[in-house]
Amino acid sequence: MKLMIGPSSRGLGKRLSMLLPFDLIIFEWKVFPDGESYFRLLSNVDDSVILVHSLSPPQDKRVVELFLLLKLLRDYKVRNIILVVPYLAYMRQDKRFLDGEVVSIEVIADLLKTYDIDRYVFVDVHSSEVLKFFGDRAVELSAFPLIGDFLLKYQLVNPIIIAPDAKAFKYAETVAKIIGAESDYIVKRRDRSSGAVESELKEFNVTGRDVILVDDIISTGGTMVNAIKMFREYGANRIFACCTHGLFIGNAVVNMFNAGVYDIISTDTIESYYSKVSVAPIIASAINLLLNKH
Amino acid sequence: MKLMIGPSSRGLGKRLSMLLPFDLIIFEWKVFPDGESYFRLLSNVDDSVILVHSLSPPQDKRVVELFLLLKLLRDYKVRNIILVVPYLAYMRQDKRFLDGEVVSIEVIADLLKTYDIDRYVFVDVHSSEVLKFFGDRAVELSAFPLIGDFLLKYQLVNPIIIAPDAKAFKYAETVAKIIGAESDYIVKRRDRSSGAVESELKEFNVTGRDVILVDDIISTGGTMVNAIKMFREYGANRIFACCTHGLFIGNAVVNMFNAGVYDIISTDTIESYYSKVSVAPIIASAINLLLNKH
Repeated sequence: MKLMIGPSSRGLGKRLSMLLPFDLIIFEWKVFPDGESYFRLLSNVDDSVILVHSLSPPQDKRVVELFLLLKLLRDYKVRNIILVVPYLAYMRQDKRFLDGEVVSIEVIADLLKTYDIDRYVFVDVHSSEVLKFFGDRAVELSAFPLIGDFLLKYQLVNPIIIAPDAKAFKYAETVAKIIGAESDYIVKRRDRSSGAVESELKEFNVTGRDVILVDDIISTGGTMVNAIKMFREYGANRIFACCTHGLFIGNAVVNMFNAGVYDIISTDTIESYYSKVSVAPIIASAINLLLNKH
Repeated sequence: MKLMIGPSSRGLGKRLSMLLPFDLIIFEWKVFPDGESYFRLLSNVDDSVILVHSLSPPQDKRVVELFLLLKLLRDYKVRNIILVVPYLAYMRQDKRFLDGEVVSIEVIADLLKTYDIDRYVFVDVHSSEVLKFFGDRAVELSAFPLIGDFLLKYQLVNPIIIAPDAKAFKYAETVAKIIGAESDYIVKRRDRSSGAVESELKEFNVTGRDVILVDDIISTGGTMVNAIKMFREYGANRIFACCTHGLFIGNAVVNMFNAGVYDIISTDTIESYYSKVSVAPIIASAINLLLNKH
């Protein structure tokens, strides 16, 4: 068994390599002036390989890199591939919301069949629909227990864990259980034609309390900014914005700080300055479990 | 039969639609703030579809777009797909030049098998190795007869058509035949260890003559710049730099003009200001031929 760390998961991969007893596969990676990627193996592979490669932005570049790496492993006769994709691009387009739409995540799943992956390991995949496209070969891990552990380092003041919508409530519950706190979620009324959020339906009693907002993905940060502003008005003490996948597109971080967030916490499924929590421990455990089952 | 014009071939697609009697497939295309692409069909498809989509830069984005479009066609029960890829990304990595390298173009070919393309139409694919990965379903067209025709518009002065290396000589011969001119190619001596070009081995008698340089791809323009400088020194009249695929990376265009090029001519396989020649006529002919054979 060897470990191969893709270009998008250098940090996470390094942390993972310290938790697993496998040698690294060494390879050359370059990008030609015209933008095409290139890979070359510089060490031997092994019969079985764990490839860790996040499909973080620039997603399409990451997608092509992934297939180039998989091809190399197959060309050099690797028989079993465990593919760890900490952030799975296109997972939000997991069904036809409108007639005529492409189900983008199914395209990723279709294409991956080309190289016959034995096991997929994903982290917080947004919906159970996503997993269906990968059949029983996929394992989903959650980063929220680790985020809960991390939050224990702060001296939290009567904390409440809040999801910005009903869908993310399960994440809030996970964190709340670890911290030993209440959890709740924001209910919104939407204008049916414009889709714009009209009003929040719930009142929260958060005066003087630390509010911990949790969601799976922070993208442009719009949802978080609205929630942060609301809880500032409600008199919250500190407000934390936590997520597994911190995309932080454009001015997301600036906007959250301007809205009054106290701290931003994400994981290394997408590597950034805010990757304060590493998912390496849960990935290492999952791999040990998969290998013992073999 | 319907025609679908991918995001990267809007201009070529429009010109093609004027030469073919097929209705266009209308679709919505957007890119989410995080960089993910999205497509939605807005019109019916047909039993058979011609999809035109160049894999020009940003190549990896174009590659993923292509698969999203193909998936849509398959989901909506298109049975026959003719895929026109005017510029085929990754075609220069068509073999293992060094042990351990990935044969990138084979990855593109492997992945395309997922959606079972009936016919591929390519333009000037750099080497015959490339076509092998697509089997007998692939047709290669050459833009050089069209480039030759286009050059006839200039009042050329005793022209000579020159390829910057032996590999591109066949393109020079094609153009020369149309113009009724001589053709030749540059022979270089390379330093074996550094790979740097040491010297040109041939002397050219081009004083007062128009020199037409032809190559399949102009990328960073380095090869062309060297040739342009050399023929300026040899006393050439006007120097033209012609290619099928004008990538024009970075300062390629500026550098060629600074070196003394008179004009730059490329085609619409990659759409740019220098796409003076459209490959639409040869693609239309090829499609008519394929359909009559069916």
